[in-house]
Amino acid sequence: MSIGNEIVKGRTVNTNASDISSFLTNSGYEISYVLACRDIKEEIGNSLEFLVKKCDIIITTGGLGPTVDDITVESIALYLKLELVINEHAYSEISTKLTKRGMEFTPERLKMALMPAGSEILHNNVGTAPGMILKHDGKIIFSIPGVPSEMRAMLPGISSFLGPSGMEYYSLEYDVKGLLESKIAPYVKELIKKYNYEMLVKTHPESGNTLNRKVTIEIYGYGKSKKRLETLAQEIKEEIDNIILTKL
Amino acid sequence: MSIGNEIVKGRTVNTNASDISSFLTNSGYEISYVLACRDIKEEIGNSLEFLVKKCDIIITTGGLGPTVDDITVESIALYLKLELVINEHAYSEISTKLTKRGMEFTPERLKMALMPAGSEILHNNVGTAPGMILKHDGKIIFSIPGVPSEMRAMLPGISSFLGPSGMEYYSLEYDVKGLLESKIAPYVKELIKKYNYEMLVKTHPESGNTLNRKVTIEIYGYGKSKKRLETLAQEIKEEIDNIILTKL
Repeated sequence: MSIGNEIVKGRTVNTNASDISSFLTNSGYEISYVLACRDIKEEIGNSLEFLVKKCDIIITTGGLGPTVDDITVESIALYLKLELVINEHAYSEISTKLTKRGMEFTPERLKMALMPAGSEILHNNVGTAPGMILKHDGKIIFSIPGVPSEMRAMLPGISSFLGPSGMEYYSLEYDVKGLLESKIAPYVKELIKKYNYEMLVKTHPESGNTLNRKVTIEIYGYGKSKKRLETLAQEIKEEIDNIILTKL
Repeated sequence: MSIGNEIVKGRTVNTNASDISSFLTNSGYEISYVLACRDIKEEIGNSLEFLVKKCDIIITTGGLGPTVDDITVESIALYLKLELVINEHAYSEISTKLTKRGMEFTPERLKMALMPAGSEILHNNVGTAPGMILKHDGKIIFSIPGVPSEMRAMLPGISSFLGPSGMEYYSLEYDVKGLLESKIAPYVKELIKKYNYEMLVKTHPESGNTLNRKVTIEIYGYGKSKKRLETLAQEIKEEIDNIILTKL
């Protein structure tokens, strides 16, 4: 869940979302939705309402800073009807950073230490605002900053809090020139069925001219054993290569 | 609403969303949410349900092609309880393209002509699958392909169908070196209030080192007159420059 007008109105490309998703996908987690909303309390609440119903884990980015439009934690507390308190760990982390730079604890900076009661913090080694970890109703909500370098630096903390997913993800991609999606489509459909949907096959046509354009074939799946996924992917690739050679 | 596993799992950065949003923002439309979901009927239905409740106009990208995971139109029909029929205009557009290339109308290609009864089509001058325009319950749903070159080529069609928004958008951005967000935050808060929230001011810190990093100041807003927005933005910029010079 990406919070920020700049994302929603298209000023900023949402690379945070793809960075977080690919990080978690490669750790075996399945992502269901990516939602971006504006810096508006009600819309943050609506977004959270949707995601809390559908997902076990929610990661928000953005809106943790000292400015007037940084309202993420406040909105989460409001929507979940939780009391906002000064988190002592957040307070001391911010305080140490400010002292080091000879800066004062202004009300704007104090805001970064406010979190719903019972929250834990995620250390921010790059910027000032700590992240938040909130367990609520069997769900886990992480809130991390939207500045990409700060967001990235906090992914290992999320990962170690969550622990291993117990699943592996594997993906094999390669390009085929002059292939038409619509020609290979019926074979891919049968192939996926044959492998019991354990692996999926997607064809991504290159942007540009339809004729002679390149298609990227992506074979991927989740499972308990990476080795098995690799073997399956290789088997499927050979079947596809054979279909292209003999039937198209 | 971006449909596709590749977006949600972070394989593909969602530049379609930012391209569409910035195109519409610059035409004076306000975007409220950007939502990405997987190629799963139920999740497409859930996403549509959320957006239909909150927005007047919904644009979906992806899932219009001939492959087994291209299920956008089918899922929209299912969720809105509409009958899928062969759209004659879509049929003839696809047919013309196939004939030109000496290709047959296979079941996979026929799928691209199926649309809910009452839909209009959006011409696709780049690829094969036409887009869909569906008016439903006072809302408008556009479905366009996910291949970026095809998506971009269809934006003018969406724009001309919607007509002028009646609003203008204006944004002024510039960088300030060595500025701290938290220092200028209280002044920005007062400034926005002084201008009655007609214009918003956002500070975007550069990713990287906290000290001496650059902050981009963004002054923006919607209004009836572009000239007035420009004048306001310039006035606010001068006030900010003055605050930086005299108070920080």
